[in-house]
Amino acid sequence: MTDIFPTDKTRFREAMARLGAAVNIITTHGPDGDNGFTASAVCSVTDDPATILVCMNRNSSQYEIFKAAGIFCVNILTPDQEALSPVFAGKLTMAERFTHGEWLRLATGAPVLEHAAAALDCTVSQMVDVGTHSVIFGAVQAIHLGPSGDGLIYHGRAYHKISVQG
Amino acid sequence: MTDIFPTDKTRFREAMARLGAAVNIITTHGPDGDNGFTASAVCSVTDDPATILVCMNRNSSQYEIFKAAGIFCVNILTPDQEALSPVFAGKLTMAERFTHGEWLRLATGAPVLEHAAAALDCTVSQMVDVGTHSVIFGAVQAIHLGPSGDGLIYHGRAYHKISVQG
Repeated sequence: MTDIFPTDKTRFREAMARLGAAVNIITTHGPDGDNGFTASAVCSVTDDPATILVCMNRNSSQYEIFKAAGIFCVNILTPDQEALSPVFAGKLTMAERFTHGEWLRLATGAPVLEHAAAALDCTVSQMVDVGTHSVIFGAVQAIHLGPSGDGLIYHGRAYHKISVQG
Repeated sequence: MTDIFPTDKTRFREAMARLGAAVNIITTHGPDGDNGFTASAVCSVTDDPATILVCMNRNSSQYEIFKAAGIFCVNILTPDQEALSPVFAGKLTMAERFTHGEWLRLATGAPVLEHAAAALDCTVSQMVDVGTHSVIFGAVQAIHLGPSGDGLIYHGRAYHKISVQG
């Protein structure tokens, strides 16, 4: 039988490479300290009540930590912070990762990146498993706005800078 | 009582304006014909099984149509298609909207934009209500890749073009 509408992984990934998205560091704080990873699969859900979502691979070593913590912060990177993206996507230990950037705490205790374009400090309101991933919904408890609204976008498997007129 | 961590709608919307995102037209086909709206709240979920999600306001006049149809297509716009964004976000009738752009059909019968950066034709696998919105999960049935991988990004309440090296 011929597959006339191929949806193999390579093709899906190519399509998703064309869905540009902001670059974020998702953080939490658990019994063993701070944790964080880089993610572009972040989406605004509703402003009533203020809610965002993050998609996370359930095979990630951090998944159970995030699930148990019940809190997370979405830190939206600016172009100046591009170097933080590989730091939080690589092989460094958690302690090493958080030596990069300046971090503070707001409502939940999850690390908040001081100079992020924006940071949304959340409690987990719901988790929905879909295939290999879990969609984690966050009820926003605090919002931190950084000094710059410039944007860092990942599109076509590369980083791009977006400047906002002041 | 002083709110030391303000999360009012204005502040949430400012934070979300800093979360740049691709611009998409979401389409379906129901008993009364083709429907479509512009959305940036679209997110990749997993490639196993290939799944994406779209957030939709349940107060939208189109919501019941999408829910009943059980199918939708995410059409990721290129910079050349920026003019389609207001067409599908404005006051035009559905018939008028689809006179703009060239449309084809793949697996589900939902309209597929021929020159989109990519189009993902889906059946609805799950819907999760969160506040005013519903998160609609789509199991990808067919993928259409357009001729260009350039990206159209909405960030800081403005459109931006991202060029991909060929």
